Amino acid sequence: MAYIIEIKYASPNDRGKGGIEVNKVAIVGGGLAKFGVRKATYKELAQEAGKAVFDDIPNLDRKDVDSLFLGTAGSDRFAFQCYPAPVVAEQVGVQPSNIIMRTELACASGQAAMRAAYGSIVAGITDIALVMGVEKMNTPSMAEAQTTMAAVMDREWDGVNGMSAPPFFAMIMQRHMYEYGTTREQIAMVSVKNHDNSSTNPLGHFQKTFTLDQVMDSVMIASPIRLLDCSGITDGAGGIVMTSAERAKEFTDTPVYIEGMGQCNMGSLVTNLPNLTTWEPLKVAFRNALKMAGKEIKDLSFAEVHDCFTISEIIIYEDGGMCEKGEGGKYIEDGSPYIGGKLPINTHGGLLGTGHPLGATSIAQVVEVIEQFRGEVPKERYVGGDCALTHNLSGNANVHSVLVLGRGG
Amino acid sequence: MAYIIEIKYASPNDRGKGGIEVNKVAIVGGGLAKFGVRKATYKELAQEAGKAVFDDIPNLDRKDVDSLFLGTAGSDRFAFQCYPAPVVAEQVGVQPSNIIMRTELACASGQAAMRAAYGSIVAGITDIALVMGVEKMNTPSMAEAQTTMAAVMDREWDGVNGMSAPPFFAMIMQRHMYEYGTTREQIAMVSVKNHDNSSTNPLGHFQKTFTLDQVMDSVMIASPIRLLDCSGITDGAGGIVMTSAERAKEFTDTPVYIEGMGQCNMGSLVTNLPNLTTWEPLKVAFRNALKMAGKEIKDLSFAEVHDCFTISEIIIYEDGGMCEKGEGGKYIEDGSPYIGGKLPINTHGGLLGTGHPLGATSIAQVVEVIEQFRGEVPKERYVGGDCALTHNLSGNANVHSVLVLGRGG
Repeated sequence: MAYIIEIKYASPNDRGKGGIEVNKVAIVGGGLAKFGVRKATYKELAQEAGKAVFDDIPNLDRKDVDSLFLGTAGSDRFAFQCYPAPVVAEQVGVQPSNIIMRTELACASGQAAMRAAYGSIVAGITDIALVMGVEKMNTPSMAEAQTTMAAVMDREWDGVNGMSAPPFFAMIMQRHMYEYGTTREQIAMVSVKNHDNSSTNPLGHFQKTFTLDQVMDSVMIASPIRLLDCSGITDGAGGIVMTSAERAKEFTDTPVYIEGMGQCNMGSLVTNLPNLTTWEPLKVAFRNALKMAGKEIKDLSFAEVHDCFTISEIIIYEDGGMCEKGEGGKYIEDGSPYIGGKLPINTHGGLLGTGHPLGATSIAQVVEVIEQFRGEVPKERYVGGDCALTHNLSGNANVHSVLVLGRGG
Repeated sequence: MAYIIEIKYASPNDRGKGGIEVNKVAIVGGGLAKFGVRKATYKELAQEAGKAVFDDIPNLDRKDVDSLFLGTAGSDRFAFQCYPAPVVAEQVGVQPSNIIMRTELACASGQAAMRAAYGSIVAGITDIALVMGVEKMNTPSMAEAQTTMAAVMDREWDGVNGMSAPPFFAMIMQRHMYEYGTTREQIAMVSVKNHDNSSTNPLGHFQKTFTLDQVMDSVMIASPIRLLDCSGITDGAGGIVMTSAERAKEFTDTPVYIEGMGQCNMGSLVTNLPNLTTWEPLKVAFRNALKMAGKEIKDLSFAEVHDCFTISEIIIYEDGGMCEKGEGGKYIEDGSPYIGGKLPINTHGGLLGTGHPLGATSIAQVVEVIEQFRGEVPKERYVGGDCALTHNLSGNANVHSVLVLGRGG
């Protein structure tokens, strides 16, 4: 019935040729609602995040925002809001007269919103874009959250057969341990590290540290994945403001430029994925984003990546080019991704520590970059620097989205 | 709780200033799946439309499509697919290595996809974009379709109080008749006209003509709206291919250029709308789109507009600037919007005649423009020309989206 996608390593476009102008679009500020199991509704989360954004950019009047891009993955089912963009506009107090849209790309819905905003700004349609990510996942019936998450896998072939995120990533973890000898301890270190980092992040879901034993003894979810291998079911919201580099000067002395973007999709059904433990679309997305920015991994000051499960971060080290294939376990054992290490990963605590309110996750990563560059984070997790990368995967890791952000100059 | 939006007439941006380059992005072809109550699944509809698109552009290889923009309003609830973009990519046989995203803006989800594609092409990120719209609305339980449509209104304040599309537009129709003396017959003429037009559209939902009496005697839905005042609950899908004007020459001798775009949102809750019978955001969207294109209403050869209900088309005549306010009824009575009239409206049959599969609706309008410009439509509804407008409203008419399309030169 379905076309079978040819499994190949997509060749990156020549990004010098396409007329891409780096440093043309800037992020001038942003803010978050508190992540967690919140009593707030979808609308209240949006309002709280909106206030945080405008508090962060005092020179910006709500009236001057002419476009709204909203990343929301599942409001239709989680919050019974099937047309959330104007709802958010109203809650935040903006009246878009150039563009309004919601974008969805499961766990990368916020990055999709940033991409749409970027194009619209470069095209001259949008002057000042508010880019929001909002997700209300905790509902009276958590069965709703679970069935919704299961519908992120293809409903007809994968979802109905019990495939949802935990069993899917459990297969990956088992296979990675088998193929590469990655140890349970190495994988658990990701959770310990990221919870350590989030312990100084008051807006994150969790501010609690855990020992290696606590991670490895936590409740079994889908063998070998245990509770502390999983990111949370989190309510959260966030927003950033994007505009042209030229206009950015009106609002901040510390703009963050979008220097590189990469994204790649290969397949949908689990059976059509190129490989469980090597993420080919991740390689393409990293390569294209870095190429567009004219940067390499060694140029990065830190990176915020999509640790939806502990094993994900191990594979990101490998396929993102931070270490050799199969060496992800050793890479964390050696201390490389810690604050103070070779390349700090998930300084804000990642999805494991700060939670994973789908549409808001990408936004929270970018807010961390803004605050790191500005030196606004607590000294325990301060890295600073001038070039960072953010990464999200979606669904069954069949789409990867990467941004390279820099301070310019 | 909510910020109350200031009700004002948003001033259009200076579109000459923003660096917008008209005629930079072209549509090179497109195609549709059959609209109707289909036995096909969401995925099969996507596959059928994808085949139609590539059949229409024989020089285009699926491998050369580097980005997919999918407009889908409600697959999460209608089809239990919460991450539909890669599903559609797989069904159609493309492997996006630059951008993939789903866009949602209720009934204008397809236009949102085109806007995101436009920006991405101008920004040089996307080379060749497949822009799809897919919606599977007819499900075993039609209660699901109805509750989903009700969730397009704000769930917490409007939806729970029984506000969904038919009662909302019924209030508008009653009020328009009261304020302007618009007659039941005039409003019913919209349905007769659009069903006449769709009778020669084999891919439309309905190929049946109706008399004025049949419309006015059809089943009451929400007084004064009757069945034949409503667009259908339709399964459907469609796609177009967008690329730079330069590359377009490789694929077609008859590119359609995106010359103007306008969009505006005012409010979300029904109580916050500026006015029920005068659609301020429609005025802004029309004005901005025409201004960007350097065109006026009199320059249009025809227009495909969002007749979700008969009364909508009457108000579009008025606030779109085709006639004076309150004169919409007389405008159709005078014959202006018929084929052969002053400005043919909904040559393909509109939403009333061809059905309204939310995400696919905007795409079907653009496919009609392509086929009219090429002279591929049946002679009964042929208009041709070189400049057309497409329009969609979303939700409770709080967002309006307009495109001006031309043959260039």
